[in-house]
Amino acid sequence: MSELPIGLFDSGVGGLTVMKEIAALMPHENLIYLGDTARVPYGTKSPDAIQQFSIENANFLFSQNVKLIVIACHTASAHALNIVQASLPIPILGVTTPGCTSLLAETQTNRVAILATASTIASKIFDKLLKSQRPNIELYPVACPLFVPLVEEGLQDHESTLLLAEHYLGHLRAKQIDAALLACTHYPLLRCSIQRTLPGVALIEPAKACARTVQQFLQEHNLLNTNNKSPQYQFFASDDPAKFAVGAKKFFPSSVATVFSLESCSQILLPSRQLCEGRNRNDSEETHFAH
Amino acid sequence: MSELPIGLFDSGVGGLTVMKEIAALMPHENLIYLGDTARVPYGTKSPDAIQQFSIENANFLFSQNVKLIVIACHTASAHALNIVQASLPIPILGVTTPGCTSLLAETQTNRVAILATASTIASKIFDKLLKSQRPNIELYPVACPLFVPLVEEGLQDHESTLLLAEHYLGHLRAKQIDAALLACTHYPLLRCSIQRTLPGVALIEPAKACARTVQQFLQEHNLLNTNNKSPQYQFFASDDPAKFAVGAKKFFPSSVATVFSLESCSQILLPSRQLCEGRNRNDSEETHFAH
Repeated sequence: MSELPIGLFDSGVGGLTVMKEIAALMPHENLIYLGDTARVPYGTKSPDAIQQFSIENANFLFSQNVKLIVIACHTASAHALNIVQASLPIPILGVTTPGCTSLLAETQTNRVAILATASTIASKIFDKLLKSQRPNIELYPVACPLFVPLVEEGLQDHESTLLLAEHYLGHLRAKQIDAALLACTHYPLLRCSIQRTLPGVALIEPAKACARTVQQFLQEHNLLNTNNKSPQYQFFASDDPAKFAVGAKKFFPSSVATVFSLESCSQILLPSRQLCEGRNRNDSEETHFAH
Repeated sequence: MSELPIGLFDSGVGGLTVMKEIAALMPHENLIYLGDTARVPYGTKSPDAIQQFSIENANFLFSQNVKLIVIACHTASAHALNIVQASLPIPILGVTTPGCTSLLAETQTNRVAILATASTIASKIFDKLLKSQRPNIELYPVACPLFVPLVEEGLQDHESTLLLAEHYLGHLRAKQIDAALLACTHYPLLRCSIQRTLPGVALIEPAKACARTVQQFLQEHNLLNTNNKSPQYQFFASDDPAKFAVGAKKFFPSSVATVFSLESCSQILLPSRQLCEGRNRNDSEETHFAH
């Protein structure tokens, strides 16, 4: 058993969908979440940048004494899982593999779509992961760059969102797919528009599968926290903790009294070794969220 | 006279509209442009983050021996012009003041709209600048967060863009405005959709006015470069120089053979003093753009 917290990071608030499923499945775990809101979005950035940002984020969580890190962002998982695993002496899990497991369990026709950011699609990670398990699978990967800003603007149900879903996905109706992986943490919020564009197609959200993978890993390694009656949830944002808190409270209404700021945006941007030198608690100042 | 280059920075490629007007008006000037593509966009970030990014960008240009810096980004001009001016011993000009001058010259009714990013609108910089010169002006500021990603996706003429222009701007038709400032470097690319939504309203683009302001400043301070027969244009991007080059070639087809990368994304994210220590040329490696 380990009482150390689980760490999660994402480019923004999207990864909170994963944190929520982990909290639901493992209610005794302490959790620390970092949203890299100073550099959001990742989905349009280069592999080099995403790898560097991911290492810096993971090093920050490592400095907070976490027992395991979940990369709760598909773009970062696609490009940086291996490199982060190689750089730190604690287990690192991503969201791409659990998503693939769910998708393969769902499809009957072996004709599936992957909806993701431009950078995730460009990584070809899903081709690799899915074809290694099911060589005859037919993949239709689609980058949908406007989906994230549409969600962030709260325009999920606007007429333009349906038009843009048709723009990105309309051609898939001729492909006889039976399942589509929503491989970006924002996309489940567009489920309604996506489903109207792809009627009859099963839309797969990886957050629950990711939480089960984390639970299984902790069980197998005797790291589950089983006796903790008052789990602590901590939130950090690299920019604008007050704005982050507004988003986070939608997922954790009773837990987000406070979001910690990184003292300045550059704190997590320091060379990795500087954040790795000690494993002492970070001395960032608390930023109280005005209710 | 000074042969030193003029430096410009923006969060991405948008500021190249300003660089193009400067190159047209002052064809003997050497120019250095930095696109902070690792942290784009700025328009959704906090004032603190924008100020820090702007200081880091300006310090990088200062280390390249520029004689003057143009903040070719409305969001950065709105939040960081004063702080960058206070931090460096060279002149720093922004795009907000020239835009205001053009807008005031155009309006007859003194009822005008400001279209900009959420962060620029929140700064209230235009209220301050315009009302100090014309106290009876009626301002209608509108944040249009999806305009930048729509342009970046190349969907200027998509049906959804017209719907979103109507979503953001439709209410302005009842306000009897006669001019609107396109206070974001991306927005001129949406001129067609904006004009269809606001027929009869003069749409003001600040790039030309900014170039005239730079020219006047250099003349007054005897800094104009008048004898340079082969001006040098240098481009730097904090992420993905090859992708940046594709965008930059649209503005400077014959000049963008090469975009320099910052050695790693974190180079410009170092504390300001480290970049200020010397004024030697940056030793970033050249990244050749594949034609």
